[in-house]
Amino acid sequence: MDWILIAPATALGAMLFSIYLFFYVNSKSSGTPKMQEISGAIRDGARAFLKREYMALAAFVAVMAVILTITLGIYVDMGIAIGPAYIFGSVCSALAGFLGMEVALRANARTAYAARDGLNKAFPIAFRGGAVMGLSVVGLALLGVSVIYFLTSDPWLVLGFSFGASAMALFAKVGGGIYTKTADVGADLVGKVEMGIPEDDPRNPAVIADNVGDNVGDVAGMGADLFDSYVASIVAVMILGASTGLKAVAESSFGNPLAYADLPLIFAGMGIIASIIGVFLVRVGKKGNPGKALNWGTYLTCAILIGLTFVVTYYLGYPLQIWGALSVGLIAGIIIGISTDYYTSIDRTPAKKVAESSVTGAAINIITGFSYGLISMFPPLLGIGIASAVAYFICNPLGPESGFGVYGVGMSAVGMLSIVGMIVAGDAYGPIVDNSRGIAEQAGMEKEVIDITDRLDAAGNTAKAITKGFAIGAAGLTVIALLAAYQEIVQREAGKISFDLMNPFVLTGALIGIGMPALFSALLMLGVGKNAFRMIEEIRRQFREIPGLKEGKEGAKPDYAKCVDIAAKGALKELLPPSIIIIVVTLAVGAIGQLIANSIGPPYEFGGIQALGGYLGGSIFSGLIFALLMANSGGLWDNAKKYIEAGALGGKGSAAHKAAVVGDTVGDPFKDTAGPSLNTMITVMSLVASLFAPLIVALAL
Amino acid sequence: MDWILIAPATALGAMLFSIYLFFYVNSKSSGTPKMQEISGAIRDGARAFLKREYMALAAFVAVMAVILTITLGIYVDMGIAIGPAYIFGSVCSALAGFLGMEVALRANARTAYAARDGLNKAFPIAFRGGAVMGLSVVGLALLGVSVIYFLTSDPWLVLGFSFGASAMALFAKVGGGIYTKTADVGADLVGKVEMGIPEDDPRNPAVIADNVGDNVGDVAGMGADLFDSYVASIVAVMILGASTGLKAVAESSFGNPLAYADLPLIFAGMGIIASIIGVFLVRVGKKGNPGKALNWGTYLTCAILIGLTFVVTYYLGYPLQIWGALSVGLIAGIIIGISTDYYTSIDRTPAKKVAESSVTGAAINIITGFSYGLISMFPPLLGIGIASAVAYFICNPLGPESGFGVYGVGMSAVGMLSIVGMIVAGDAYGPIVDNSRGIAEQAGMEKEVIDITDRLDAAGNTAKAITKGFAIGAAGLTVIALLAAYQEIVQREAGKISFDLMNPFVLTGALIGIGMPALFSALLMLGVGKNAFRMIEEIRRQFREIPGLKEGKEGAKPDYAKCVDIAAKGALKELLPPSIIIIVVTLAVGAIGQLIANSIGPPYEFGGIQALGGYLGGSIFSGLIFALLMANSGGLWDNAKKYIEAGALGGKGSAAHKAAVVGDTVGDPFKDTAGPSLNTMITVMSLVASLFAPLIVALAL
Repeated sequence: MDWILIAPATALGAMLFSIYLFFYVNSKSSGTPKMQEISGAIRDGARAFLKREYMALAAFVAVMAVILTITLGIYVDMGIAIGPAYIFGSVCSALAGFLGMEVALRANARTAYAARDGLNKAFPIAFRGGAVMGLSVVGLALLGVSVIYFLTSDPWLVLGFSFGASAMALFAKVGGGIYTKTADVGADLVGKVEMGIPEDDPRNPAVIADNVGDNVGDVAGMGADLFDSYVASIVAVMILGASTGLKAVAESSFGNPLAYADLPLIFAGMGIIASIIGVFLVRVGKKGNPGKALNWGTYLTCAILIGLTFVVTYYLGYPLQIWGALSVGLIAGIIIGISTDYYTSIDRTPAKKVAESSVTGAAINIITGFSYGLISMFPPLLGIGIASAVAYFICNPLGPESGFGVYGVGMSAVGMLSIVGMIVAGDAYGPIVDNSRGIAEQAGMEKEVIDITDRLDAAGNTAKAITKGFAIGAAGLTVIALLAAYQEIVQREAGKISFDLMNPFVLTGALIGIGMPALFSALLMLGVGKNAFRMIEEIRRQFREIPGLKEGKEGAKPDYAKCVDIAAKGALKELLPPSIIIIVVTLAVGAIGQLIANSIGPPYEFGGIQALGGYLGGSIFSGLIFALLMANSGGLWDNAKKYIEAGALGGKGSAAHKAAVVGDTVGDPFKDTAGPSLNTMITVMSLVASLFAPLIVALAL
Repeated sequence: MDWILIAPATALGAMLFSIYLFFYVNSKSSGTPKMQEISGAIRDGARAFLKREYMALAAFVAVMAVILTITLGIYVDMGIAIGPAYIFGSVCSALAGFLGMEVALRANARTAYAARDGLNKAFPIAFRGGAVMGLSVVGLALLGVSVIYFLTSDPWLVLGFSFGASAMALFAKVGGGIYTKTADVGADLVGKVEMGIPEDDPRNPAVIADNVGDNVGDVAGMGADLFDSYVASIVAVMILGASTGLKAVAESSFGNPLAYADLPLIFAGMGIIASIIGVFLVRVGKKGNPGKALNWGTYLTCAILIGLTFVVTYYLGYPLQIWGALSVGLIAGIIIGISTDYYTSIDRTPAKKVAESSVTGAAINIITGFSYGLISMFPPLLGIGIASAVAYFICNPLGPESGFGVYGVGMSAVGMLSIVGMIVAGDAYGPIVDNSRGIAEQAGMEKEVIDITDRLDAAGNTAKAITKGFAIGAAGLTVIALLAAYQEIVQREAGKISFDLMNPFVLTGALIGIGMPALFSALLMLGVGKNAFRMIEEIRRQFREIPGLKEGKEGAKPDYAKCVDIAAKGALKELLPPSIIIIVVTLAVGAIGQLIANSIGPPYEFGGIQALGGYLGGSIFSGLIFALLMANSGGLWDNAKKYIEAGALGGKGSAAHKAAVVGDTVGDPFKDTAGPSLNTMITVMSLVASLFAPLIVALAL
């Protein structure tokens, strides 16, 4: 039996299981007519956004596919299969997003309705709804990778697939991030501040857009982001495993030169098995704690994966050190997640300190939250640094000349990401229960039911802190592996190339690179501001022009669709410039650098290649910094506000609360737009570099 | 004639000229009795802080000198002269700071008094007061460097001198930064917000501490910071110039192996001549624009320096490419300064956009200012990157194997910093006129006089934007040169060592390094918060316990000295932990890394040395990011507020103004505490690495 078949087999298994879960969720009652009405409006809005997003994506992908085919397929003669591979990647990711959204949009009202029968009835609906997304992501991703690899045996074409997935991630994560904050800020500023109506009030024309935003940002966006990282980590290791050195080792040990390129696929298959078991095992009793259940599910999945991969590694005769590298990544991921949890949780010192500082005003609240955000980046950075070094030095002795060291680093990223099925399940659970809470409230359910949805919602926030840290850590290791893959690709053509910091090309590249994440996140945040401004105008217009709307008269209906449309149109408009900038600047650094290097000559004849390496390094560093800072300080401000709302320091309506609200509003685009988009950004840039490496090498030779 | 004598000669000249200017300022009338009273209180407070600071510094320096002597002097046998060199460095810098403060504390009231006779009478007093600081800094720095170099001919001992200066910079810049914001925040929050009394009101017990803060933070702190960078850039180039390769070239071209180590001293001497001429030429007419005069002074000094160094380079027979590298640095510095000016000036788009966003509330003001701050870092990073690459490639062809490339990069840093005399003069002018404005107001001068001091003050802000960008750019190039110097020192003992990003030691070091500036600035900002809290308690106590103070009754005097004391004691207390952390972590990365490397063996036998290189690289990247972000967004928020106060968008007291005040308060510790301290921090870390390099090499061998 060929063990690599485990990859498509488990991927198909994941798809079948997720279809089963889809029908499980769908079989539950969709609730009262009022619930159905609200959930129907959210569904319509989300579908409208997805339709618009997919159309824009299709145009973008078509243009990029033509560019890829001409430049890489024809000009540097890497074969025109790159175009279809790219399109296929974006389609698979889009399909996973579509499935996940469809079930999330069904699970929300069903969870709210089931909450009448108790926590233990409602929880599985929400969690299994999330699991559909999780398993679709890993299933379609691994299936897609397997198909291309089986058809072509060329990891570089899998890179094309991965780049296609990253296009989807840009649209879903970045666009979704802008969408969700546009709606949120607009709804809050006009509704709560100007009109004085409560949150989630059906009179507010932006209320549906706001609910839609939770889904498109947190479900579809996050799914596409992790689809992207997941595929990228696998392909990076495949490329490293297909290096000349490892091919030779694989040939002599296994009689199969691609044995090391196959291994990440096999491990990913094990990850799917572990995730399916993990999803099965997550349960909660009538009086249980759903947050603990989710976290235990994650830990269990990790333990199962470590066990499974040990057996497989041993049985197939791969060196156990590689399994060691994978385990190091997984453990580092958990540690990073726990540290993120510490720095953002509502019941820990940092959130309390930020809450206390709110007493002295909004400015001190912001400075304190920002400061703790700065401090919070230290443990993850240390974790990523140590994990990559340990993985390297575990594997390097297997064959220092063959490239086992960087292969081990890549494997640690695969280790972190192979449980993505479970991670996404827990993450997508969050917006489902968030929505179900809103629906329960708007549908006028009893207090006990709302309390249950509240508890489900709180569990989502706990799980999110850990999975968010996990995602950033995984992205960090993945882009390091991609940098190694880039180096491997250029070295195949151009011989040994190092990225020495004291090389002026590398240094200048790095200095430009560190500016990119800053520029990118600034453009996103300013984009949210511009888009929110349009939204505010429209909400004001509706309150002004629709008679009886503000007073809540019978028959005075706001035009929800118009607000949904503004958020969607604006999000797609604002995401394009930064997305194009990161792709163009990446290519420009390589190409212009190389043209300058050509004019200087030896020993700087590969200056452009080196500048691009430094540029990637710089953008990874600064991308990690800002991703961690924004995610964690945003989470902190949010929880400091919630801490006060829970009754501390004067509670809701106090001066401290007002100050904390300012911090929370600053944190919104930090943690929901700019911060999480940086993962996608550094992955996209690394993929661009690796994919276009043959073109830049061609410029050099 | 030995041309290197130009260094001590011009340094002495600078000292004599600054003494002349001191007497010039002192000869002016010290104003009305009321003015003398206020200025006397500020002087007492500042002296009290300096005394406390110098005592703490003395203890710190004594301990460090013992550690240096034992570890470096005795253990690795580099000679016990390192201890005295270190002490001498801190003493020279402290002396420069003392002189600068003494004159600034005299010039404030004298400027205010002279303003009665017109702008053209007041301006020279303030500017020449600042010039005393500027010329003392360059004079004492270059004199100190020359003395050590003439006595020992050992650039590594000059590094010890430089490290001593950096100890002073830590105390003055970091401590001063905490001091000034402690006083500012405390005075504002209790005085303006709680008691409703105006700014600078003599009833406020913290008002003198606030005025003192401007002097200790902006005059003494900034002077010590630039003293530090100035010496560091010179010594970095001296070390690079004393490399084996350049010694051989120098021996064969000039018959003097240290000809290239001497050159930065000669250029620094030219910089002093240019600065003295520049100071002479800065003049302003009765209706003139003092801001333009200051900027023209800077540009003129640059032009004179470019001319002088060209002549000297040509006359002495050095390759003209080295002069080219110096000019590139100087031009890059000006471009970076102008870009900073654009991103922070009150009359440019970014500040106006931030002001407009304030209409939608404090949170949007902060997000917008932060976003523009992020964008603003791109031009300086690009400028530093291009300048270093151009300098490298201009000089490299002179002898690629001899190390001319990195020598050129160092020279570009020297180019930027050799006009420090003029830069500091313009910078120290700011707090002098700021103080004189406060004194004029408190002393009840007529409106015309206050208007003149207002115009002088506004010019200070314009000049500050440019010089601040200049200082960050210069620090960036200097630390790159120091990284090269570090490499040169370790290579002397250990052979060729590169800092390849894909080396796991370098990468892990870099990941730790990028966390350090974040940690450092967070600790400083939290330190300000803690210290401000103590101050607030004291101010409240005085208002509560001193009868008639709030009502302003005759004879009800606040206890100014107590507030000065709290600010000073707290500042010194809060600066120690972060200062010790950066020194200890730097050494730990090198030492622990090397012990691990020793256990791994070849080809990683110099892993600790490489980890430290990566760590420095990472901290330079992240230090530049945060220094630029914090300085620029802080400046933006400040000017957005001033734009509104000037009458736009509803003016003072409007909702937009209240929102802008929150942004300004967030920006205060950004731009005056954390941001500027990062220059000092990365210089200190680089100096620690270079100085202790022999110790880490000893661990390796």
